[in-house]
Amino acid sequence: MSESQTTYIRPTAQPRREASESRFIQACKRQKPDRTPIWLMRQAGRFMPEFRDIRSRVSFLELCKNSELACEVTVMAVDMLDVDAAIIFADILLPIDALGLGLEYVKGEGPLIHNPIRLATDVAALKPIDVGQSLGYVYKSIELTARALPKHIPLIGFAGAPFTLASYMIEAGGSKTFDKTKSFMYSEPEAWHLLMKKIVDISAQYLNFQVDAGADALQLFDSWVGCLSPTDYERFVLPHTKALIELVSGRVPVIHFGTGTATLLKLMAQAGGDVIGLDWRVNLAEAWLNLGFDKAVQGNLDPTVLLGTREELKLQVARIMKEAASRPGHIFNLGHGVLPMTSPDQVKFLVETVRNSEAAQ
Amino acid sequence: MSESQTTYIRPTAQPRREASESRFIQACKRQKPDRTPIWLMRQAGRFMPEFRDIRSRVSFLELCKNSELACEVTVMAVDMLDVDAAIIFADILLPIDALGLGLEYVKGEGPLIHNPIRLATDVAALKPIDVGQSLGYVYKSIELTARALPKHIPLIGFAGAPFTLASYMIEAGGSKTFDKTKSFMYSEPEAWHLLMKKIVDISAQYLNFQVDAGADALQLFDSWVGCLSPTDYERFVLPHTKALIELVSGRVPVIHFGTGTATLLKLMAQAGGDVIGLDWRVNLAEAWLNLGFDKAVQGNLDPTVLLGTREELKLQVARIMKEAASRPGHIFNLGHGVLPMTSPDQVKFLVETVRNSEAAQ
Repeated sequence: MSESQTTYIRPTAQPRREASESRFIQACKRQKPDRTPIWLMRQAGRFMPEFRDIRSRVSFLELCKNSELACEVTVMAVDMLDVDAAIIFADILLPIDALGLGLEYVKGEGPLIHNPIRLATDVAALKPIDVGQSLGYVYKSIELTARALPKHIPLIGFAGAPFTLASYMIEAGGSKTFDKTKSFMYSEPEAWHLLMKKIVDISAQYLNFQVDAGADALQLFDSWVGCLSPTDYERFVLPHTKALIELVSGRVPVIHFGTGTATLLKLMAQAGGDVIGLDWRVNLAEAWLNLGFDKAVQGNLDPTVLLGTREELKLQVARIMKEAASRPGHIFNLGHGVLPMTSPDQVKFLVETVRNSEAAQ
Repeated sequence: MSESQTTYIRPTAQPRREASESRFIQACKRQKPDRTPIWLMRQAGRFMPEFRDIRSRVSFLELCKNSELACEVTVMAVDMLDVDAAIIFADILLPIDALGLGLEYVKGEGPLIHNPIRLATDVAALKPIDVGQSLGYVYKSIELTARALPKHIPLIGFAGAPFTLASYMIEAGGSKTFDKTKSFMYSEPEAWHLLMKKIVDISAQYLNFQVDAGADALQLFDSWVGCLSPTDYERFVLPHTKALIELVSGRVPVIHFGTGTATLLKLMAQAGGDVIGLDWRVNLAEAWLNLGFDKAVQGNLDPTVLLGTREELKLQVARIMKEAASRPGHIFNLGHGVLPMTSPDQVKFLVETVRNSEAAQ
């Protein structure tokens, strides 16, 4: 990799003081903010008619690569929902595109990878990439968005965690059973560890460069890691995720997120992160106690609750707020992304409900 | 329902003494068998060339409804794999077919339900069925199989648990997010509870009639219940599953199975069952301690381990046997069904490995 090819690696962006002292960042650091911050995974997404409008004109990948549009949808979500943090519009699979594995988003079917990793030789053949060049558009999106956002709204950068990225590379897309991924892991352990190391190397560059561009926090999405047993997580994933988090820590808070992770939470905390993501399958109070109060927590509301009545929504918000017990370090979020069929009014109502529930305490 | 229409309700089958004293049944009752029993979910399935042969001639539903063939594949699996229990060849969705909701198995896509439950009025319109008539072929399959099996091999009957059946009825098939099911549950709680009650009523008849036919144990498959939060399980599922288990208990041992249930295990034990199913996401020793040793446990091996090396397989079997610590009430099984791409030799090797690991102790 030659520095001269790098398109967007520039001196670190000017820190945005107000954003870095926002209630979201305070909660990440387990300081006590004025109230519980809330943002939502996929808050800029298909549930919003305005987003579908834009998507009717450009493909998903085009939208990710068009920094002006990515900035527009990122800021739009914050304006419309009045949430406490923005997350840059991008996708965890973009490094797979940058690696030349032939990423395509097939309408109605999700991502498809045309040149998946199937053999040890495929791993050996994976070449390092110049993140600044091949993912420079994400740098530009973050730079533009950090300028366009209200001063007090922090911007979250993100990447897929090593296991989740590896699983997409091997499965050639999504999976129910992750049979190809696990069979590779069990049959070719050396190639597996090499693949994870290569992903860590790229992801560390990618995440650090998002901070350079102006990201105020980072989230690592290990969305599918919950398919693993605790011992397999420990053997095949933990050392790599830990290495990655070490390589990006100390600059901005790091959120370590997964789903279906009830039995992995302590190991995920060992791998690192200032904030640990919780899905709805755990009781927030028990999970936090189990993790230790030296970690902040984020999540816990089942995204499908947004499809039910307002009464049910209020009940579930009240439960989560009660379980969090006003302890410093609680960030309200869903356990996974907003579902496409969700009504925008219901999402707005959730944001209001979280605020009102606190005013009422 | 008129008794005269009943095709297969006959006096209870003659108990098979040897089967009812087999090591599998002893383990269900937390007695100490001569060695740890093993059987595998989907042990009669697509991974076997002989099964694919039969399936090339008849559809899946035809195979379920042809008692002679269902008996043949059930017995064949026991003969070929030398496992300690048989499970009747059938499907958890057969009562959905019996209810007239238009069940179809679409090649490569899984089950499709043509007339799903979407409205409260759909629930109200669900009519009771004569289980003896509409599912009489399952009675006949069990009766034939109980006669055809070696005397010492117990036969397991089964049904889908209320939540999992309801989810299929509402989603019209499988789902990743169970958004329609949960949205129905949250928006139409009364209709939800009525639906669950109707399912309990049918399932209790269906399971008791399997015991009448000669089943030596029963397994309740709550395969997808792990998508729920513990509080939602408690509110929307537990009372119904508990009612069902009460209605079928006391005759033969009941196995209560689910996947992704790490945080639901104690509640599932409260709902009932002599044996609780464990998937691979939990540590067996911790899960059993948490459940209490007054329950037997079954499962824990990740089905994908059968896709790896024999070395890896031996390692994982040894771990499970060590965690079970020769405590009475451990049934070796996978955490979910054998995957179709599994090699039959590897499955046989697993059965041998479990036996040898004990001989070596």
